[in-house]
Amino acid sequence: MSALFGKRGVSHDVETSEVFTPKFDDSGLIPAIVQDATSGEVIMFAFMNIQALEKTITTGTAHYWSRSRNKLWLKGETSGETQEIVEIRTDCDQDVILIRVNVQGRGATCHTGKRACFYRQVETASLNNAAPVPLKDIGGARLFDPKEVYKK
Amino acid sequence: MSALFGKRGVSHDVETSEVFTPKFDDSGLIPAIVQDATSGEVIMFAFMNIQALEKTITTGTAHYWSRSRNKLWLKGETSGETQEIVEIRTDCDQDVILIRVNVQGRGATCHTGKRACFYRQVETASLNNAAPVPLKDIGGARLFDPKEVYKK
Repeated sequence: MSALFGKRGVSHDVETSEVFTPKFDDSGLIPAIVQDATSGEVIMFAFMNIQALEKTITTGTAHYWSRSRNKLWLKGETSGETQEIVEIRTDCDQDVILIRVNVQGRGATCHTGKRACFYRQVETASLNNAAPVPLKDIGGARLFDPKEVYKK
Repeated sequence: MSALFGKRGVSHDVETSEVFTPKFDDSGLIPAIVQDATSGEVIMFAFMNIQALEKTITTGTAHYWSRSRNKLWLKGETSGETQEIVEIRTDCDQDVILIRVNVQGRGATCHTGKRACFYRQVETASLNNAAPVPLKDIGGARLFDPKEVYKK
């Protein structure tokens, strides 16, 4: 385990401890919720492994573990939309990370070019028994064209 | 699959679709981020299975899947801190749920009695090579005593 993190289950209660002892799951990952530091909007959700969490803490720029590419992922390394860390929090069980960030570049966090990944509402007011629940796009225009940004 | 949800991978692009087609992982779960509808604070993180998501949509009150108790979990059924749904969103891949809620009762979402589960900051300003990163409790007082609330 990294020198940055305490050991789980020794001499302190994880809920009240003032030592950071993050819990990674069986795949070595911890969920990370990402919030815009200014607006409070939840802009993305991803996973970190121990290396990504260490890099995030020591560099002040958000790093994740890409499950699709199976590699350490400096968010924004291609698009320019890096995330400067304003605050890192953890939860009662220390098995989830919440980060508040300032998004650089055009401010488009989502790979689709949208400001945030959570750009669609589940329209529960339109429930009926015959059809799936509709979604409504409330995310505004794309801030970049993914075909241009990710063309390489 | 429930009649409430569309089928994945048929006739539409999951990123642009206006049909709700949530993706559950290999364990049948989808991550759910919970935000206070008024303050925007991220107050908890949990998982839903298909039944929990259906119940959340049809009743307007948040339900989760308890991995520790291995059962459907009406949040607040013991403590009274139920969560009324204000808005449900999903992300680009439709494999994460974001809900905005009004917390009932004393407004204490965390089982520790705190307002939110994310009550500790990771003190990255106090980094040194000799000791783990400290945590700082910024969550305020407990709004209930867990020993009283969960005594049964």
